[in-house]
Amino acid sequence: MTGATWHLSGRADHGDVRRANLALVVRVLRSGPRTRAGLAHDTTLTKATVSSLVGELVDRGLVRESGPATAGAVGRPGQQVALVGERVVGVGLEINVDYLAAIALDVRGDTRVALRQTHDPSAQVEQTVDQAARLVADVVERALVRGASLLAGVGVAAPGLVDVASGVVRVAPNLGWRDVPLRDLLLRRLDPHPWDAVAIPHARASRPLQLLVDNEANLATLAEYATSDTADRDLVYVTGGVGVGGGIVVNGHVVRGHAGFAGEVGHLPVDPAGERCGCGRRGCWETTCGLEALLRLAADPDDIVRDHDRDLDERLDLLLDRARSGDTRTLQAFDRVGRALGHGASMLVNLVNPRVLVLGGYFARLGEFLLPLVEDELASRVVAPDLGGCRVTLSRLGLAAAATGAAYAALQPVLDDPTVVPIVRASPVPEKETQ
Amino acid sequence: MTGATWHLSGRADHGDVRRANLALVVRVLRSGPRTRAGLAHDTTLTKATVSSLVGELVDRGLVRESGPATAGAVGRPGQQVALVGERVVGVGLEINVDYLAAIALDVRGDTRVALRQTHDPSAQVEQTVDQAARLVADVVERALVRGASLLAGVGVAAPGLVDVASGVVRVAPNLGWRDVPLRDLLLRRLDPHPWDAVAIPHARASRPLQLLVDNEANLATLAEYATSDTADRDLVYVTGGVGVGGGIVVNGHVVRGHAGFAGEVGHLPVDPAGERCGCGRRGCWETTCGLEALLRLAADPDDIVRDHDRDLDERLDLLLDRARSGDTRTLQAFDRVGRALGHGASMLVNLVNPRVLVLGGYFARLGEFLLPLVEDELASRVVAPDLGGCRVTLSRLGLAAAATGAAYAALQPVLDDPTVVPIVRASPVPEKETQ
Repeated sequence: MTGATWHLSGRADHGDVRRANLALVVRVLRSGPRTRAGLAHDTTLTKATVSSLVGELVDRGLVRESGPATAGAVGRPGQQVALVGERVVGVGLEINVDYLAAIALDVRGDTRVALRQTHDPSAQVEQTVDQAARLVADVVERALVRGASLLAGVGVAAPGLVDVASGVVRVAPNLGWRDVPLRDLLLRRLDPHPWDAVAIPHARASRPLQLLVDNEANLATLAEYATSDTADRDLVYVTGGVGVGGGIVVNGHVVRGHAGFAGEVGHLPVDPAGERCGCGRRGCWETTCGLEALLRLAADPDDIVRDHDRDLDERLDLLLDRARSGDTRTLQAFDRVGRALGHGASMLVNLVNPRVLVLGGYFARLGEFLLPLVEDELASRVVAPDLGGCRVTLSRLGLAAAATGAAYAALQPVLDDPTVVPIVRASPVPEKETQ
Repeated sequence: MTGATWHLSGRADHGDVRRANLALVVRVLRSGPRTRAGLAHDTTLTKATVSSLVGELVDRGLVRESGPATAGAVGRPGQQVALVGERVVGVGLEINVDYLAAIALDVRGDTRVALRQTHDPSAQVEQTVDQAARLVADVVERALVRGASLLAGVGVAAPGLVDVASGVVRVAPNLGWRDVPLRDLLLRRLDPHPWDAVAIPHARASRPLQLLVDNEANLATLAEYATSDTADRDLVYVTGGVGVGGGIVVNGHVVRGHAGFAGEVGHLPVDPAGERCGCGRRGCWETTCGLEALLRLAADPDDIVRDHDRDLDERLDLLLDRARSGDTRTLQAFDRVGRALGHGASMLVNLVNPRVLVLGGYFARLGEFLLPLVEDELASRVVAPDLGGCRVTLSRLGLAAAATGAAYAALQPVLDDPTVVPIVRASPVPEKETQ
């Protein structure tokens, strides 16, 4: 049984039921192919309903039936129903301080194209948007060349506070952005694009291309949730970089809050006597476990690991080498930072009682050292017995988390309502069921 | 238009649609009577569907049509459809450190009976449960005498960590309870009760009486949400007493977390160099703005306001008098506590971006002084512009919040699915619609 939840705002009609059940079938198939009988079992729908739903999804090009009939079985029963990866992709773009990344993800959750470019953080907004639009166009075109035929939309992850409804980046301190209408700026460059014809039109949309902008941490959280164990409906994600970001999933939904500003974890005031933060406040969580705190604790200013011109991965590898060889200063720095990470994380665990706490960014990179420290701090700080059933894991998405989440967000309308995908062929008269 | 959300786990069927629409009509009517045309407008359902739904709710005794026809209108159109308060009540019980409280609430949200008793916190578990069961029975019987004919269930608010699925109070430090199977203990006393016959049987229930146990702060949060502006789907509730408690509502649902332990706000570690908390940790939020912190700051040990034998309300009145007459020490104490309250509250506002922050318990009682201080702290600590649209309000439920929330929780199955209420009369053949 899946933990799918179907949300309806206000009134319900029978079309909603059909759409919800189509979405449920797609959701179940995302964890792997099934026979029709297996689908009926996993969705608790009748076999007749499943047959009808599968028929419609085949017509819409979202699933196919394949595989040899099981020995002894007759006709369709042994065939596997599987999602089709080629038909629909969602594209995710991440605009970060020093790179742009874009990926095309299919409905199975497989990455079909992934591109990354360095980016000058001191560039003008217009330049950055130009570069981003070209990158998105490049990814869409490569996905089309590789067989995709429909574009569900484009999701964009921005490193700041985003007004999701308007797509305006309100504040992005590390880019120096304030009130940048990113959605409109990107659409102006992308909308007259020749692949408009492949964009899936959505209800109430005034233009063919769907484009949404959200905070990078919210989208990374969505990616962690989408790729997590399906039973983990309550999740907290904390990611370490120059800042500390994160997001909260409650009962299968990323918490966005009233105005989309939820998940602002980096500035949790953990210590009134703490250091001054870049935001002007004192003792913010990221001053105790952000990347700069780690590097300052671990090395002198002239140490190679504090050379910002070097690749971060390389510098983290160096720190790992030192720690593995028992270097006291490195180990002490890891200890300080790991405990500070656990301190702030305990607040989140006490507040929302997640099933899983996912550590991302540099926290995951140094996970072999940081994870036990975090667990230790949580054990002493969480009020609920046995951490309220929470376990701590390391993200496997790495730097791709935000772009992956943006692509999931772009696919969401299709995953929620597969009827937005046009029919490719009319259903044949259904064969008589053989069992 | 209402912001109702309908949740379904997994598959959907057409009965679910009917139930969701019945629930929607009840929800709209909770804000006041409507004509059928008004209901159709507010639910966006067709007038024919509304007529059918209203007919069923009349049959189930949950609504009635009344009022004179509007001048000039013909027959039914001018009649008002209103919820019936008598038919179904939910009972809420709060077990607190020094009192027990129970109320009967009807589907309109009106309190029909309210009783409160002092209670000896050093009593044995069995004694407390005996007293609580007698109080519940008393409230049910009074509600029946006053016209209620069906009992939706009983909700119980306990001051501690509760395993909601089993109804076991895992830890309730102020009662000295550990692993108390409160649900079973209460059911053993209540189940063979003569008013079993009036209990509404629910699906999959092995006994007629529905009884659920939850944390007092979660239930108080539910009450604040249920009585708030219907547009406020994201809410944070913080209540001050000996401890500091609270709860979080995200998109219309109280956040319970994976194991029901969410909302543990009192032990947010706000100051590593802070005072030792009753929980053994250092610098918990409640050490900075719990009642004891206020009283210690405001008065010497021999001051009357620190006399625990006196009524708390009376002592708070005394502090208010002193503050209003400009007493420096009292005002300084309010300033310290109000800022500490705002400090912790800013974490919650940054994390979940609520539409409204509700202050309850003694925070509300001293609201005229504390509220501006909280607003001031939030303004300097919240990362989102304009507090992310959050406003700060004072609870109007006072000490009744937890019992009210418990009663709402007891009514929830009826509010979610009005078809659990038995039919009292068969629907007549529908009249022809006159418009």
